[in-house]
Amino acid sequence: MAVYTSITDEQLTGFLADYNIGQLLSYKGIAEGVENSNFLVHTDAGYFILTLYEKRVNADDLPYFIGLMDHLYRHGINCPKPVRNKAGEALGQLAGRPAAMVTFLDGLSVSNPSAGQCEELGKAMARMHLAGQDFTGYRKNALSIDDWRPLFHQSGNRVDTIEDGLGALIDCELDYLEAHWPKGLPEGIIHADLFPDNVFFLKEKLSGFIDFYFSCNDILAYDAAICINAWCFDEGGQFSSTKAEKFLSGYQSIRKFSDEEKKALPVLIRGSAIRFLLTRMYDWLNVPDNAIVIPKSPIEYIIKVKFHQTITNFRIYGL
Amino acid sequence: MAVYTSITDEQLTGFLADYNIGQLLSYKGIAEGVENSNFLVHTDAGYFILTLYEKRVNADDLPYFIGLMDHLYRHGINCPKPVRNKAGEALGQLAGRPAAMVTFLDGLSVSNPSAGQCEELGKAMARMHLAGQDFTGYRKNALSIDDWRPLFHQSGNRVDTIEDGLGALIDCELDYLEAHWPKGLPEGIIHADLFPDNVFFLKEKLSGFIDFYFSCNDILAYDAAICINAWCFDEGGQFSSTKAEKFLSGYQSIRKFSDEEKKALPVLIRGSAIRFLLTRMYDWLNVPDNAIVIPKSPIEYIIKVKFHQTITNFRIYGL
Repeated sequence: MAVYTSITDEQLTGFLADYNIGQLLSYKGIAEGVENSNFLVHTDAGYFILTLYEKRVNADDLPYFIGLMDHLYRHGINCPKPVRNKAGEALGQLAGRPAAMVTFLDGLSVSNPSAGQCEELGKAMARMHLAGQDFTGYRKNALSIDDWRPLFHQSGNRVDTIEDGLGALIDCELDYLEAHWPKGLPEGIIHADLFPDNVFFLKEKLSGFIDFYFSCNDILAYDAAICINAWCFDEGGQFSSTKAEKFLSGYQSIRKFSDEEKKALPVLIRGSAIRFLLTRMYDWLNVPDNAIVIPKSPIEYIIKVKFHQTITNFRIYGL
Repeated sequence: MAVYTSITDEQLTGFLADYNIGQLLSYKGIAEGVENSNFLVHTDAGYFILTLYEKRVNADDLPYFIGLMDHLYRHGINCPKPVRNKAGEALGQLAGRPAAMVTFLDGLSVSNPSAGQCEELGKAMARMHLAGQDFTGYRKNALSIDDWRPLFHQSGNRVDTIEDGLGALIDCELDYLEAHWPKGLPEGIIHADLFPDNVFFLKEKLSGFIDFYFSCNDILAYDAAICINAWCFDEGGQFSSTKAEKFLSGYQSIRKFSDEEKKALPVLIRGSAIRFLLTRMYDWLNVPDNAIVIPKSPIEYIIKVKFHQTITNFRIYGL
């Protein structure tokens, strides 16, 4: 949950005076996202999400994120539409922080996705990848393979306090990934954080993607690999071949993977498991004293890394 | 801010199946209130606030609070309207907690009320007092004069860690209040916590009262005394005779105070200052280790208690 920055009615009324969205009727701080402060804003023109970007987001990246949402929305992807002010700007300043407003999207984040929802996700991700092809912005993935070992070293000796032998496990896995990471695969814009809480459904129908603040240019199939980890395990932690198969066939019904992409998918899946293990581990070992967010346990991703290491028959991934 | 309990889409969908308010379209945990978990819920039928009552609220009191909101709404007072389920019940159970849904009210909480807004507040409070006259529920004020000394003693020797001599100051003030507390004044339902964050405005027009979870049966003029403290000091902490005069004249344009009520108002104002000093002091000295809410400083109300002690000419209160 978030809402790190408080705003007053006067500050918000002043901010909205620069927009053509009518009179402010109400606003509520909402518990959404862990990086920024978010408010649900109601005006004569409808409902909007106002985001104040806190320190963890690099302000230089904001034009990329907002430009991408704008581009995807205009290309028919269900995602928040950045709202421009009277000067045509989508990025402003409020309470000393960069701030942007986007349209409010209805929909529910599912806590336990069905195989049908995984298929919808695959289709929508492939459509997003295609729609992103003529987006001209570029942002390097700040959490790609080159960044993992430095991030691992930042946790230093404390890694084994989480689980005995964890440091050696990660070290060994990074050796493997560095030796086997694919080169030359199709790249483009990826969401890079498409966990169930960033995807909305209305019943079985996918109604939108949100939270583009990790989006970047990287291997397209890596975005799919992230979802295999984030969507295709059951509540009990068991891998679901059915969900993975449905997710990948949904994706391929819109955009076919090349043979090279298919061949690379298992190592991309292992890589994405390490990426989320490393960030969760770092957050777990570095909880600030005044934290209002309890970090997610890294244990879930330790189990996933170990699971993928045991897989020799790649058919389990639905390929 | 709050949201102590997380709910899943499945839990909420199940809960809403008992209501006639259409399909769930979205919900967000909101940072509202400090006692309960609140969610803004959007369905085909509109927007609602869902509250899960946490431990600090006595479940036995809930029928009173909900019955009162229902009564006031039906008598034309702008307040949330409890939504009844198919069985006619306004109080249910969700995630192991008592839960109720009310209609969503637009409006903004003002951080620095104008004199005009104080006048509107006075009028609306008087209307609420009149509308409550035929409400048949009864709840004793759990934070009335008889409760103050025991609450003071719970903070024990630690009181003076907040300010040197504070214990003696409170002790002496309680002596005064116990000797001078009025008897026989008109009683009825009072909100008992009508701070600016519990009152919504759309520009200068008052659009609603929320958060009835301290409401009770007590001296009507005591409700007004609470607002003198909560609304009639400027941002710099200076008492504003103009705001107090406007508030009281607004109130009296709807419901005239008797001579006894007018005479008693200064001591009621001193009493309400002590009541909020005591609870803020208690919360300040008893912050749980896992607190996600930073308690309000008791200092503001120490200053207010001292201010009221110096007043010999009651005209300053606008009487």
